[in-house]
Amino acid sequence: MAYIQSFQEEIESALSNMEVGREPAGLFEPVTYILSLGGKRIRPALCLAGCALFDMSQLKDCMHAALGLEVFHNFTLLHDDIMDGSQMRRNHQTVHEKWNVNTAILSGDAMLIKAYQHIASISKSALPDVLTVFSRTAMEVCEGQQYDMEFETRNSVVEDEYINMIRLKTAVLIGGSLEIGAIIGGASSDERSNLYRFGTNIGISFQLQDDWLDVYGDSETFGKAIGGDIVNNKKTFLLINALNNLSVTSRKELEKWIYAKEFNREEKITAVRNLYEEAGVGQNARELMDKYYQSALKHLSLIEGNQEVKSELASFAHQLMERSR
Amino acid sequence: MAYIQSFQEEIESALSNMEVGREPAGLFEPVTYILSLGGKRIRPALCLAGCALFDMSQLKDCMHAALGLEVFHNFTLLHDDIMDGSQMRRNHQTVHEKWNVNTAILSGDAMLIKAYQHIASISKSALPDVLTVFSRTAMEVCEGQQYDMEFETRNSVVEDEYINMIRLKTAVLIGGSLEIGAIIGGASSDERSNLYRFGTNIGISFQLQDDWLDVYGDSETFGKAIGGDIVNNKKTFLLINALNNLSVTSRKELEKWIYAKEFNREEKITAVRNLYEEAGVGQNARELMDKYYQSALKHLSLIEGNQEVKSELASFAHQLMERSR
Repeated sequence: MAYIQSFQEEIESALSNMEVGREPAGLFEPVTYILSLGGKRIRPALCLAGCALFDMSQLKDCMHAALGLEVFHNFTLLHDDIMDGSQMRRNHQTVHEKWNVNTAILSGDAMLIKAYQHIASISKSALPDVLTVFSRTAMEVCEGQQYDMEFETRNSVVEDEYINMIRLKTAVLIGGSLEIGAIIGGASSDERSNLYRFGTNIGISFQLQDDWLDVYGDSETFGKAIGGDIVNNKKTFLLINALNNLSVTSRKELEKWIYAKEFNREEKITAVRNLYEEAGVGQNARELMDKYYQSALKHLSLIEGNQEVKSELASFAHQLMERSR
Repeated sequence: MAYIQSFQEEIESALSNMEVGREPAGLFEPVTYILSLGGKRIRPALCLAGCALFDMSQLKDCMHAALGLEVFHNFTLLHDDIMDGSQMRRNHQTVHEKWNVNTAILSGDAMLIKAYQHIASISKSALPDVLTVFSRTAMEVCEGQQYDMEFETRNSVVEDEYINMIRLKTAVLIGGSLEIGAIIGGASSDERSNLYRFGTNIGISFQLQDDWLDVYGDSETFGKAIGGDIVNNKKTFLLINALNNLSVTSRKELEKWIYAKEFNREEKITAVRNLYEEAGVGQNARELMDKYYQSALKHLSLIEGNQEVKSELASFAHQLMERSR
């Protein structure tokens, strides 16, 4: 993983040296703050890898787009945290908690503009195509967030709708980052498309795994408490799948837990896990994850390009999926 | 005003036919809603006029940028209304009142992306320069909104800070719209710059006039109740200028009204107007407005280009300033 790791380090270093703007400090300090909270810088690293697959000499140019993608990703976190009422992000206060909601709205807006400024710094020849993919992806991420919010208050959500929601909210930005790198690297339209599909399939698989880990993971390796989604009735793939597959009696039992206003946390987690067991949702989720993972690898295999980078991308996908095995 | 009026009509028609996106409806309906509330479409009309000054054959291409500027302007209104807690906009409920704050945040984000999609639809040759001006302007508008919010809670604001705030919040988008049109029309760098300055100077003059009209205007032609800024202690040029120019005793009297928690609305308006009279702030504001207006006309006079369009721009500026005479 020599390439991808060095890309992650370069991004980290570029972010810490980034001049986001000085005055008014009230607008730009939250931007510096959220960008400093870390994260694995997966999207910009994949963008650079997408470029390196086809033309290493364009990496410097591609860095502008990579930074734009990371700034965009952090913009979505900032605004999503307001909408979700989240108090903590990466063990630090969220921007609207540390400052206030107005600051978080406006600093987020500035970040979205900043993201476009980075994107627009790439070479003129690639700019129109890159902008098209970037804006399309950005709009889809908003659509995904809207569906996510709507699903939380809707009575029933079917599995296809859920998969489409995580595709929009999470996967297209992974795919779009890779595709933007490929455009800057001069890839053909088929190669761009295969790389994009590698990314979106990995993204969906990754998000399904996140749902799975919340129930079946190890809290130490997962990095957060197990069962949070169950306690909060989050409409994950597991819950939707259980509601679809349980017998009428068991489904009523599950719904009783969902509508319960007062309950013992551990008791609810254990009861819902047992119902999940009965419905076989753990197994169903793993099968679906694997289907998307295999589809990702198939699309990657169709791409020519630098073999070292290609095998790093395969290892990277494998590592992501290893979290749960 | 044959050109500018027909531009306004074309924009209105293009906006009503615009496909902003269908699904999820919860994301796109608020966008259609705010774009349908009307307004004079000044920024996109000026963008088209900026292009028509230099090359009428590029007007079709310029329409994309003009629409992007109007969508951007409405995005700022949508998010500003959340931050300012405004309940009404153009005699209709604001988006966060009609829907909710989360919807208003996310639909606003989608509008900013949509604005960039329109901008990115112009011809490739003009795109890099247009994007540079658009993003710089968009960022400055955010800076202006931040200063505006900060000033409301600050004890003292000096006149230069206030002028800089309205330049950022209002004037640069007028100037930027004209400049973007000029770029698409193939203007020289000097012409671009003069047109930009015509726009920013008119914008500052217009905003100062808005402050003046709140105190000295006629409620029917102004379109809103007189004295609202006084009642709300809004830090307008008039208030700042009064605090700077009054004697110590009169300044204390003004501050008494500012800090009063309970008061009779008409009594406060009359008392503050009398103090403004004493400080000569009406006259000071009109002199400053006129200084910026004259500077705008000087920059316009330095531009070559289509004489009909140029004289329409001068008439347009004159009409804006006529509101108060």
